[in-house]
Amino acid sequence: MRKKKHGRSRLDDCGPLVVAAPEEYRGQWQTEFGSGNPVHIEIGCGKGGFITGLAAQNPRIGYVAIEKLIDVLVLAAEKVKESGLKNVRFILGDAAVLESYFAEGELGGIYINFCDPWHKNRHEKRRLTHPSFLDIYKRLLQKDGRICFKTDNQKLFEYSLNSFCANGFLLKNITLDLHNSSIEGNIMTEYEKIFSEQGQPIYRLEASCLAK
Amino acid sequence: MRKKKHGRSRLDDCGPLVVAAPEEYRGQWQTEFGSGNPVHIEIGCGKGGFITGLAAQNPRIGYVAIEKLIDVLVLAAEKVKESGLKNVRFILGDAAVLESYFAEGELGGIYINFCDPWHKNRHEKRRLTHPSFLDIYKRLLQKDGRICFKTDNQKLFEYSLNSFCANGFLLKNITLDLHNSSIEGNIMTEYEKIFSEQGQPIYRLEASCLAK
Repeated sequence: MRKKKHGRSRLDDCGPLVVAAPEEYRGQWQTEFGSGNPVHIEIGCGKGGFITGLAAQNPRIGYVAIEKLIDVLVLAAEKVKESGLKNVRFILGDAAVLESYFAEGELGGIYINFCDPWHKNRHEKRRLTHPSFLDIYKRLLQKDGRICFKTDNQKLFEYSLNSFCANGFLLKNITLDLHNSSIEGNIMTEYEKIFSEQGQPIYRLEASCLAK
Repeated sequence: MRKKKHGRSRLDDCGPLVVAAPEEYRGQWQTEFGSGNPVHIEIGCGKGGFITGLAAQNPRIGYVAIEKLIDVLVLAAEKVKESGLKNVRFILGDAAVLESYFAEGELGGIYINFCDPWHKNRHEKRRLTHPSFLDIYKRLLQKDGRICFKTDNQKLFEYSLNSFCANGFLLKNITLDLHNSSIEGNIMTEYEKIFSEQGQPIYRLEASCLAK
């Protein structure tokens, strides 16, 4: 992606949509969105097509979308600003420090879509379904919370199936070809649209904590 | 497969390899194979290439191979007879009545290779990974027992992943492409050789009971 001009100032123009000091909201996100509303997050929201579609469908759920690249975060935030949606916030940040943004048991859902597969073995720890990340998710999720994971990368999906199973998660709605499955209501990401049109199968699973 | 001539008499020629009244061995299979040796079974052994290879590798494990088609069972039994292996028995029988052949907790392992996918929804109950079969396996397996499942059918594998997860099994060593995975020591069935040579990926998983 070409470097966006004035990324920071365009982000500032999105005002309170982009949370400048997310640590201050830790444990308080429900209040930000309206009392009692569940809080779900997307890790790596990219250009924001997925979170915008999901938030429009579920106005009573508050969504926090995290993205580490400012140039795509700008596009996502501008998309939500234009839509007028009130239940989305953004964090320019990193999955590795999720626990500085959210408190234990604060999340009802975690979405991970088409994350970097980090295919080299020596980069395994960077995969968002590495056991060290799963441990973080486990602490952040509430009792009936769940993770929705999508990828077009077969090896990453295989790795993730094993990683979830070995680390105390119960899997359901596993599909090896989402767009030819019986699963309804899928919201496509920008990336997913391109790759599924090329005939690439999309893998998906849901994971909840076995004991919580 | 062409109908074999004299199937029954050829099976009789394999003598005690083919157990005529398996119900009488229920709870006693360990004694048949030698005291203390674990008992593993294969459901649907076909022409017996897999069980012959496995039994040769593990002389201290007793294997019981079940097959409902007499014409392929004959070939499997003759293969074992020729090999001189002492740790294999055959049952001409059906998976639906497994509990008449084996007692609760009697089995250390169950192998299911390339079973009929029964792809129509109305035939779901016939799939060997349907919950009703998983309940049977759960009762027959000992505490640390496990199921090894292989298929070339993507839809059946997807169905089976969900079925195992939803019915109290813990999965490990899941692979979506066995012949390009790090899993070692795979023994191919006759069917697997043909289909994997055509570039068809082979799916595999291991399942053990979560609570036993």
